[in-house]
Amino acid sequence: MNFSRDENDVSAASHYPFLKTRIHMSILVVGSVAYDGIETPFGKRDRILGGSATYLSLTASYFTPEVNLVGVVGNDFAEADLQTLRNRGVNLDGLTVDASGKTFFWAGRYHFDLNSRDTLDTQLNVFEHFKPVIPDNLRKCDFVCLGNIAPALQSMVLDQVDNPKLVICDTMNFWIEGAKDDLLQTLKRVDVLIINDSEARELSNESNLVKAAVAIQDMGPRTLIIKKGEHGALLFTENEIFSAPAFPVLDIFDPTGAGDTFMGGFVGWLAASGDLSAENMRRAVIYGSVMASYCVERFGPERLIDLDQESLRIRYDAFKELSSIPAHD
Amino acid sequence: MNFSRDENDVSAASHYPFLKTRIHMSILVVGSVAYDGIETPFGKRDRILGGSATYLSLTASYFTPEVNLVGVVGNDFAEADLQTLRNRGVNLDGLTVDASGKTFFWAGRYHFDLNSRDTLDTQLNVFEHFKPVIPDNLRKCDFVCLGNIAPALQSMVLDQVDNPKLVICDTMNFWIEGAKDDLLQTLKRVDVLIINDSEARELSNESNLVKAAVAIQDMGPRTLIIKKGEHGALLFTENEIFSAPAFPVLDIFDPTGAGDTFMGGFVGWLAASGDLSAENMRRAVIYGSVMASYCVERFGPERLIDLDQESLRIRYDAFKELSSIPAHD
Repeated sequence: MNFSRDENDVSAASHYPFLKTRIHMSILVVGSVAYDGIETPFGKRDRILGGSATYLSLTASYFTPEVNLVGVVGNDFAEADLQTLRNRGVNLDGLTVDASGKTFFWAGRYHFDLNSRDTLDTQLNVFEHFKPVIPDNLRKCDFVCLGNIAPALQSMVLDQVDNPKLVICDTMNFWIEGAKDDLLQTLKRVDVLIINDSEARELSNESNLVKAAVAIQDMGPRTLIIKKGEHGALLFTENEIFSAPAFPVLDIFDPTGAGDTFMGGFVGWLAASGDLSAENMRRAVIYGSVMASYCVERFGPERLIDLDQESLRIRYDAFKELSSIPAHD
Repeated sequence: MNFSRDENDVSAASHYPFLKTRIHMSILVVGSVAYDGIETPFGKRDRILGGSATYLSLTASYFTPEVNLVGVVGNDFAEADLQTLRNRGVNLDGLTVDASGKTFFWAGRYHFDLNSRDTLDTQLNVFEHFKPVIPDNLRKCDFVCLGNIAPALQSMVLDQVDNPKLVICDTMNFWIEGAKDDLLQTLKRVDVLIINDSEARELSNESNLVKAAVAIQDMGPRTLIIKKGEHGALLFTENEIFSAPAFPVLDIFDPTGAGDTFMGGFVGWLAASGDLSAENMRRAVIYGSVMASYCVERFGPERLIDLDQESLRIRYDAFKELSSIPAHD
């Protein structure tokens, strides 16, 4: 089930109610595809589909038909998991199967409050030598979505694409500490950076998040999103700040992938609407938050497989109601 | 400059644009009046007017003329500081001058990021034996605002008042740990509890703030506000949750009194509007946040003395803009 760029017609729109036919954007997603072992206080999965590109693609697929995944898996990757992605309309032309080894595997155990976790196992496997190669037919994708991989690989992706309309990037403390120069080179070419509050502080050497944002915007990304977990997110565009609430989730089952899911909802909404205004970025941040709030309700990406558009709209409106400030009087 | 309850006429309204003439409520404020020694990374004051009742009263005075302070000061309390309160229209009939000793003194030094501080000195002085006595003419105040004092003293205040329309209460970890039974007795008589996130977690033994709120509402207060510092505040009313943003302050000069100031703005707005609906509580939370965001711009209560109504409205609108989620499309 691949979508070409000419298929954005009425039948596509009926599958994708968010789509504004003929203006939507294609998305290139680059990141990890993995198996995760997850333990939370509520249960355990020994091996479940994971990886940043997986969460990004599954989530974006609720908004737009043209989601193209670039990554690598090993000789143990199950056909059923490929089918999970295909069933959501994700184009796997850019997914390499490297028969020389196994798929990237990570295992972790969350602590009781779910705010911290211990890594129990990391096996890079075929991901260790991953060099993203963008197939010719994907080099003209409108949006490039760089999951959390080495900044040098992110730059390698940008070297291969043809003048994208928007480059969206994730990173983490590991790269800020270990590959800062590479990261600064990548950031010069990034339009939207999405990181969490501790990463923003570390990248900028500023404890005040507003000052941190100004410093990071000076590094390249004219738009910055700072995720604050249970405290929501801040969106910094060129002339304004938007403070998005977190959804008051009573029972977080498994936080794995919530950050990637946020990014997938953000880029998915922008692609479906084809509108990069500051006002529409606010909607995108809320759709990212909506998707992340669903993601944590079950293990891994399980909840991202069976959502429906009506649920997304209902929760969007719940976010709006949650933070609505009445007019003065 | 005292206001009697019959003076809520047009001339009062011209001083108090927030006032809906003839429906506003009188406020009884009980708490500490103190001198503080404050060191922040930006400067130092050896001795500046402080105390919860001071911040509460000064702040509420921007909204309504009927603010009545009950507290105690010592033989060293300066006439100029009394005048500061009187100039803002605060009625000092309930302020006792105890000539046997000095005024409560606290000194602290804030760390570089202003999120933590060391207490350098605490001299309870006349506050050590403070037993609040509510003058007869104040026993019928509409709203009772209990600053952060021992829960047994808060109950003592409630024993003396005549069927108030609203009881608003602050407390702190010190009392949750050291006077839990007294606190639980007080909470049964409280309508609105205002505490910070760590206090909410400790009081309820729940790490999830939504679960914490449910547990605390079961203790008595049907309305709960959880302050989250740089992350804003959550308002829990009977049927809904409101997530208020924090104002993105670039330079916090001195956080002393910000929590009391929040409470003063909250109760002040409710008193001026005379409307206890969930929708209007949202406005009150934002006015609390507005006042706190101004308070931290200077040392101690200095900024609370020279504000004007126009500034309050402008910042209210800035909060509204900051967190406004656009309609779906």
